[in-house]
Amino acid sequence: MTAEIITIGDELLYGQTVDTNSAYLGERLTALGIEVKYKSAVGDDVKQIVDAIKLAMKRSDLVITTGGLGPTPDDVSKKAICDHFGRKLVLYEDILRKVESWYAKKGVEMPAIVRNQALLPEGTRPLSNDWGTAPGIFLEEKEKLFFALPGVPIEMERIFDNGIVPILKERIPSGRVIAFRKIRTAGISEARLHEKLSSILEESGDVGIAFLPTSSGVDLRLTIKSNNPTEAQRKLDDFEKKIQGKLEKYIYGTGEETLEKAVGDLLREKRLTVAVAESCTGGLLGKKITNVSGSSDYFLGGVISYSDELKMKLLGVPKEVLEKEGAVSEKCALSMAEGVRRLTGADYGISITGIAGPTGGTVDKPVGLVYIGIAGDEGSSARKYVFTKERELNRELSAQTALNLLRLELTQS
Amino acid sequence: MTAEIITIGDELLYGQTVDTNSAYLGERLTALGIEVKYKSAVGDDVKQIVDAIKLAMKRSDLVITTGGLGPTPDDVSKKAICDHFGRKLVLYEDILRKVESWYAKKGVEMPAIVRNQALLPEGTRPLSNDWGTAPGIFLEEKEKLFFALPGVPIEMERIFDNGIVPILKERIPSGRVIAFRKIRTAGISEARLHEKLSSILEESGDVGIAFLPTSSGVDLRLTIKSNNPTEAQRKLDDFEKKIQGKLEKYIYGTGEETLEKAVGDLLREKRLTVAVAESCTGGLLGKKITNVSGSSDYFLGGVISYSDELKMKLLGVPKEVLEKEGAVSEKCALSMAEGVRRLTGADYGISITGIAGPTGGTVDKPVGLVYIGIAGDEGSSARKYVFTKERELNRELSAQTALNLLRLELTQS
Repeated sequence: MTAEIITIGDELLYGQTVDTNSAYLGERLTALGIEVKYKSAVGDDVKQIVDAIKLAMKRSDLVITTGGLGPTPDDVSKKAICDHFGRKLVLYEDILRKVESWYAKKGVEMPAIVRNQALLPEGTRPLSNDWGTAPGIFLEEKEKLFFALPGVPIEMERIFDNGIVPILKERIPSGRVIAFRKIRTAGISEARLHEKLSSILEESGDVGIAFLPTSSGVDLRLTIKSNNPTEAQRKLDDFEKKIQGKLEKYIYGTGEETLEKAVGDLLREKRLTVAVAESCTGGLLGKKITNVSGSSDYFLGGVISYSDELKMKLLGVPKEVLEKEGAVSEKCALSMAEGVRRLTGADYGISITGIAGPTGGTVDKPVGLVYIGIAGDEGSSARKYVFTKERELNRELSAQTALNLLRLELTQS
Repeated sequence: MTAEIITIGDELLYGQTVDTNSAYLGERLTALGIEVKYKSAVGDDVKQIVDAIKLAMKRSDLVITTGGLGPTPDDVSKKAICDHFGRKLVLYEDILRKVESWYAKKGVEMPAIVRNQALLPEGTRPLSNDWGTAPGIFLEEKEKLFFALPGVPIEMERIFDNGIVPILKERIPSGRVIAFRKIRTAGISEARLHEKLSSILEESGDVGIAFLPTSSGVDLRLTIKSNNPTEAQRKLDDFEKKIQGKLEKYIYGTGEETLEKAVGDLLREKRLTVAVAESCTGGLLGKKITNVSGSSDYFLGGVISYSDELKMKLLGVPKEVLEKEGAVSEKCALSMAEGVRRLTGADYGISITGIAGPTGGTVDKPVGLVYIGIAGDEGSSARKYVFTKERELNRELSAQTALNLLRLELTQS
């Protein structure tokens, strides 16, 4: 079974919205063993949408569109579906009642325009939307499946998971799988990874391998297509073991495991706590650590010491350090990490201080200069980094590097 | 001039990477008056890439590919370019020297595989890459333009801006423009916006209007195609003024202005400072405020009080409040906001405390319950919100809502 995703919206072509929907759908469909062969984006234009649906229904077994189902006049997907499949819009009474009660529950009067949400192409099956007012649409033609979903990510995701997955599971020919394994590394470059793995890459057999750089490091994606799911998993297991033997500490997780999850698991396992002292990242490290549900088990909190006053007052950074060495210095990073550890009573204090840019750099202290400190039971240390010229990237790299340093500390201790 | 973007990489079809590159290119091309008509994604497969290039070169004046230019064997875009255009790979000596010096500057030995980066399709023009080792590729055929860019966003962006834009500017037929205006709103729903604007929507003339929901609110996008750039801007100005008359305080900015930028500008203008006390957002509000370069003018920092101990010790939240009302309560939010204001000496203290989920909810205090407090010169207040069941979304909505509350406070004071 091959699938095709069509995302709809001028904002996608004009680049005003980043399309996350097709990535979500691609991942879910692939996990179901359905091969996504094509993805395309078209504007809010009935003819463009009709053309895209026509081509997709010809070359793919399963077509999913996202976007253009809203109540305002710029949403024309339903019109295009009617045109292509030769249907007309009719009122679905049960949908209307559902939308009305959705507003009633919120205690908000329903705007008249929302009534449009209950108009669907005749003879199609609505897919329930508990997160918004636009139902999904399902129809089947000549053994091919067509689904239309709203563009709001949370609504699209829920309708797919609850409404579409059960329909697909009934129809997927069993046996054929595309199996994946993602191995996540940090602290090593793509080229250096390739070098370290060169001897085993030749022995990969029918396992494909790809190198995918991310802001936290480089992911290795292993892929195998097979009619035997058990054998496919075994081959992935074997190859993963070989890779682990070569990379060891560079690997922090597999699949969708994040660096913050890996760090959190280590902290919980060792019953240790951590607190943060952030300057240039402004709270990003704390935000990342608390991405993980249950992080209150090991994360106490910390201080965002954006001003020098707070560095002194809350973290006890000595005035001399700020005057002589500056806020972006090894000594300040050390003092911040030690200070937040003392203040909160955490087992580990981590600090970040740097020049995120784009302004504030000098010859001695350029944009991208960052010091990261760790204070623990066995003393404290700080390291110097020179990242990039980009503010956002510098902050992201700072937080990810701090997480990786703590991970290494925890795996060695 | 019409453009087409082809993104290359299995990870895009499998959904393991969200494609931000085509959004960047779509936005830049549109701003240059070039209409992006098609976008498609294909896998790391020579035949698929060749087919996509063939179709694109037929129907569009300008084709840009991203991805697949790396040094590892899974990168096959150069092979596909050679196949389609009938070229062979040859060594570009100057590129090799540049890549070698790139490594020398970093003080790192160059892995042998990186030499591949200097092999380019014969007769093509390399586009300089100062951010990585893969140069872009430019060739012209039958008055059509073809560009290939690496997939790493920062490299792709810089080569486009520095290498491609000058080439395009020479070739764009003057006069024809697509002009945009984005008006950003917060604190009002899409349907309600439509209702408020209904009387003027009929007078929009040739200005198109679209409603785009975001995590911070709803953006209104005005579009006009015209041969007269001055007139187009005037029409956008006129219509924007009408919209402003209807929406007033709901509008926080235009274009790419963010809520944090709008808040920052107000704080700077009024010479006021702010500090944050964050619980469930773990630092996200501070991170957002410091997205803005120069935010140290008005942002002092704050406390991430993830544990009850830190709420008491640093922010002075009374033990009785935590015991009787709980950490997620109006009183706790008030006390946190007042506490961080006192601690830091800021003009405003903002607090967020809530149940982000997915666990931790009860019947009385469900997942999604969030209190946001603001303490200022004229007293303090806290508001209750019930957002969603999604951890990430709840945190994002909490931070954005806090920013909007501060914005409203600052525009009224």
